[in-house]
Formats: sequence, structure tokens, C-alpha cells
Amino acid sequence: MKIVIALGGNALGQTPEEQKQNALVAAKHIIPIIKAGHEVVITHGNGPQVGLINLAFTEGNKLNKKVYEMPFAECGAMSQGYIAYHLENALINEMAISGLKKEVASLVTHVLVSKDDEAFLNPTKPIGSFYTEDEAKKLPFRTKEDSGRGYRRVIASPKPVKILEENQINALINAGFIVISCGGGGIPVIKDGNKLSGIDAVIDKDFASAKLAADIDADILLILTAVKNAKINFNTAYETDLGKVSKEEIERYLANNEFKEGSMKPKIIASLNFLNSDKKKLAIITDINNALNAIEGKSGTIINN
Amino acid sequence: MKIVIALGGNALGQTPEEQKQNALVAAKHIIPIIKAGHEVVITHGNGPQVGLINLAFTEGNKLNKKVYEMPFAECGAMSQGYIAYHLENALINEMAISGLKKEVASLVTHVLVSKDDEAFLNPTKPIGSFYTEDEAKKLPFRTKEDSGRGYRRVIASPKPVKILEENQINALINAGFIVISCGGGGIPVIKDGNKLSGIDAVIDKDFASAKLAADIDADILLILTAVKNAKINFNTAYETDLGKVSKEEIERYLANNEFKEGSMKPKIIASLNFLNSDKKKLAIITDINNALNAIEGKSGTIINN
Repeated sequence: MKIVIALGGNALGQTPEEQKQNALVAAKHIIPIIKAGHEVVITHGNGPQVGLINLAFTEGNKLNKKVYEMPFAECGAMSQGYIAYHLENALINEMAISGLKKEVASLVTHVLVSKDDEAFLNPTKPIGSFYTEDEAKKLPFRTKEDSGRGYRRVIASPKPVKILEENQINALINAGFIVISCGGGGIPVIKDGNKLSGIDAVIDKDFASAKLAADIDADILLILTAVKNAKINFNTAYETDLGKVSKEEIERYLANNEFKEGSMKPKIIASLNFLNSDKKKLAIITDINNALNAIEGKSGTIINN
Repeated sequence: MKIVIALGGNALGQTPEEQKQNALVAAKHIIPIIKAGHEVVITHGNGPQVGLINLAFTEGNKLNKKVYEMPFAECGAMSQGYIAYHLENALINEMAISGLKKEVASLVTHVLVSKDDEAFLNPTKPIGSFYTEDEAKKLPFRTKEDSGRGYRRVIASPKPVKILEENQINALINAGFIVISCGGGGIPVIKDGNKLSGIDAVIDKDFASAKLAADIDADILLILTAVKNAKINFNTAYETDLGKVSKEEIERYLANNEFKEGSMKPKIIASLNFLNSDKKKLAIITDINNALNAIEGKSGTIINN
């Protein structure tokens, strides 16, 4: 089967050393999926990484004017190279150990969003450095108080409209490569007439992964997160793991506000987006230790049409 | 014909805005080559860009410990994403204007070097920040005085042994895509037994491009630089542009030290490496304005076997 595996950016850690180690953990769990005969496209988040890169340029610029302020889309593009390097390296090393003979292709990926997306009117995604209220007032961009820790820049999180490299990804899968793409939800670009340009935004990586999975006609969207199962009645005495559930059941739970905003909720919505693209699709939410088990129907939250 | 076009990193400028503008200039000259019916793989340098990224992390780390020191291979990987983003965007926009219907695939590229390469014994490539002599003595890496401007870290510039993504690049060319790869000479990796890992080094982008061109059986290696022609008797009254020349003639000039170290000399050696791979190859050195003319045999320095 053709599977899009969405890795969390947080799971890759904070420092370059952590990222190398965590990429190896991811590879150790992904290689058995490929050995079981599946075609795999790996997508990943970039929250901590793009934050780190952006912070390096902001702080560096304060000390040395030879460090230029780096726009957010450019930082995202950098994070794609940075994360793909570690992930690809880890996959190659794990394949050498496990005797799997495949090669990896990491594609810089642009994702088209609409310049009229409502998200641009109400940016909600906090990113980068913290500022005091006074500092924040003088900044040339929108800020918002973030959980009592200070003011931060907020940018828009628009919906993915088109993965620009869809055909490239398909060509690479069909040629037998393991593909890494849509890093950080993709580099966000808008179209003005015929002109394409980058824009300060962050596309939710699960939404981008669901769009990619639908567009390349994947059989399974596998969203990997910190927990084995999505839950209902979360943090109550009636907390229950969701195993195999139907789309209708999940839609009911979603309407009942069972899933936490900015955490499980976008993963559920991304899963539903994917399921709506075709009757035969499967969406799975679980942690990396249960990835192969979940694909085999033995673990995790498995949502079908 | 299949052409590897090697763009200079310096030609892409210093700031993100400059890079966007210069990527557009490059695209305006590359699109006509593709329209003329050629298959194109674009490689590029990353000197200023990887220096900027490395500097951002070094300076940022002085001010804020949440900015981690970033190893050089990681900075190179970031520069691949950063440059590919602007180049691909510029190519897409120029194609829309010119009516060319193609798509671009930008691959994160690793290049294998030998851990026994002599370059590791004698690092020569200055990179990143400048230090005073006293500061330099306390640093955990090798430094060298750089042209009276202060001390800088020096890292090795080993020879490319294998482009890891050679098959991926071939698959993408054969599927009809414009390919961007080998950014900054590729992310340098070494092999220790079966284990692949990144290493602090910079691979000369012209050497990497020549290796790639030979490996994918390109017809032409087109090295774009600041001048229209390579010259002999440079800076003398007898200074002469080289037009169409044979490999033997170039080898004679090279033996006579006609070409400047760290500037024209590596481009000449890269050209010869490529020509040595097969009798029917052509190597061209010229500036971007003369790229298509040179391919048509009407401009630039054209070296044949």
C-alpha cells in the first residue's frame, strides 16, 4: 500500500544532536514498514526547527548587521534541508543495517495557499522570540500575548490548496524511492495572476500531509504523534482510547468538542479531509512505536469510511 | 542535449532580497536553454549563503543560548533549501511568462567524500566569522589568517567520490523535470564501514558538478562565472580570451600556471575531469549572459576532447 507518514516536528527534538538521534528512532520504525512491502512518503513538522532558525537570524542580527533578517518562508525552506539531511542519513544507515536496498529522495516542497484565505485576516500561530509589551508595540508585525510568557509574533496558518511538487513526488514513488517531502507543511506560496511568491505563513503539516495523501492517491494517512490513541472524555474518569472507529463516529466526537484545539483536533480534521477524498481510504493516528502494528490493524486509532 | 549548469554562489548575492532578484536573472537565462530543447540540471555554489547561516547561529548563540551552535554540514543542508526555494520560484515565474510548460524538482543532495582524503590533513577553505589572534588561539577548531582581515576557521575541501542521489536525479530528468541539485557542492558525508555521517567540509561546487555531469552522462558541463571567457596571460599586455580550445591546449596552459588558484583554476580542473570521463563531452566556461550562445558554439570558452 501507498502510505503518507506524517512525523511531528516536536518529536525531532530541539538541538541538532537531538534531531540526529530522534531521526534514527524514526528510521528504526519506518524501515520495517517499507520492508513489509509498503510505498512510503514521509512528511514532517518543523515547529521547533523553524523557530530555532528564525531565532538565530533575529538574535544574530542584533549583534552583527552582516546577519540579515530572514523572512519566515526562507527559514521554512532552510528547515526542509536541515531536517531532510538528518532523516535521509538515518534512513540510509538503518537500511544498511537491516539489509533493505532502497534509496531516499528529499524534495524541497512548495505548497500553494490562497491569498484570500481568511487565516491572513486573523493570524493565530505564535512563532519566534518573546517580546515585552512595550517592545511588541514597536514591531512592524502583529503580536499576541502567548500563555503568560510574553508577546510573540503571530502569523497566519492558511489551508493548503495544492502541493506544487505533486507530480515530482509521484514520479519518485513510482521509480521506487522513499520520498521525504512537505517539510513543515511546505514552503507557503501564493499566486497573484501568474506570479508565484513566498509568504509569511505556516501551513499545518497534518493538513498538508492529508492534501498530499489525497492528491497522490495514497491508501493510508498515518499521523504519528506523542500518544498511542486519540481519546474521548480526555482527562476525565471516563477517558477512553479510540481504536477502530468509523468516520461518522469521529465526526460526532468532533462536533462534541472531544479533541483539543491545536493538538488532537487538527489531526482529526486532517484525517477526515483525507477520508473524504475517496471511499477506500484509511486514516491512522498513533505513536511511532505502534506505527507498523497500526497499519496491520492491531493498534492505534484507525478511522475508516 | 543533457546539460549540467553550475551557477556561482556569489552570483546569487548576499541578502535574501538580492538572492531573489539574482535567481530571477539566472532563470531568465536558463529558460531559453530549456526552450531550445535541452535537458537541464542546475547546480549552484553556496559560499555567501552558508557563511551567512553559520554566522547567524554563531552570533545568535552569543546572545541567546537557545540558539544552538550549528555544525557546518547542517548549515550546508539549510542553504540547499534556502537557495532551491528562490531558484525554483524564479524558474516557475519565468516559465509562466515564457509559456514553457515544465516543472522543477529540487533535491537535497549528499555527496560522499573519503575520510582519508588528504584535504582533511590540511584544511584550506576559510569560512564564517573573523577572530583576533588571541580569540583564535582559544577556539576548538583550526584557524588561519585570512588576507589581513583576521583569523577565520578553515575547513577541508575534499574531492567528491559519489553523488548519493545520482539515481534520483536521473529518474527526475528522465521524467522531464528541471532538476536543482548538488547545492553548495552537496552535503559532505563520509562512510565508516556501513555508517554514513556528515562531516565539517566544503566540496568545491564545480568539482561536484563535474562528477555529477560525468555520472549522469551529460553532454555538456556549463560552468557559469563572472567572466565571458577564461584567459591566458591574465593581467598582462598579452591577455587573451580563450575561445574554442582542445583539452590538450588547456592542459598545457594549466601546467604553465595560467589560471588563478581558488578562482579560474578549479573551474579548469573540473572541466578536465568531466572531459576525461568520455570522448564526446564538451565543457564550457562563460558568464550567464552568454550561456545559450556558448552552448550554440558562438561564445565563451569551449573545451572539447
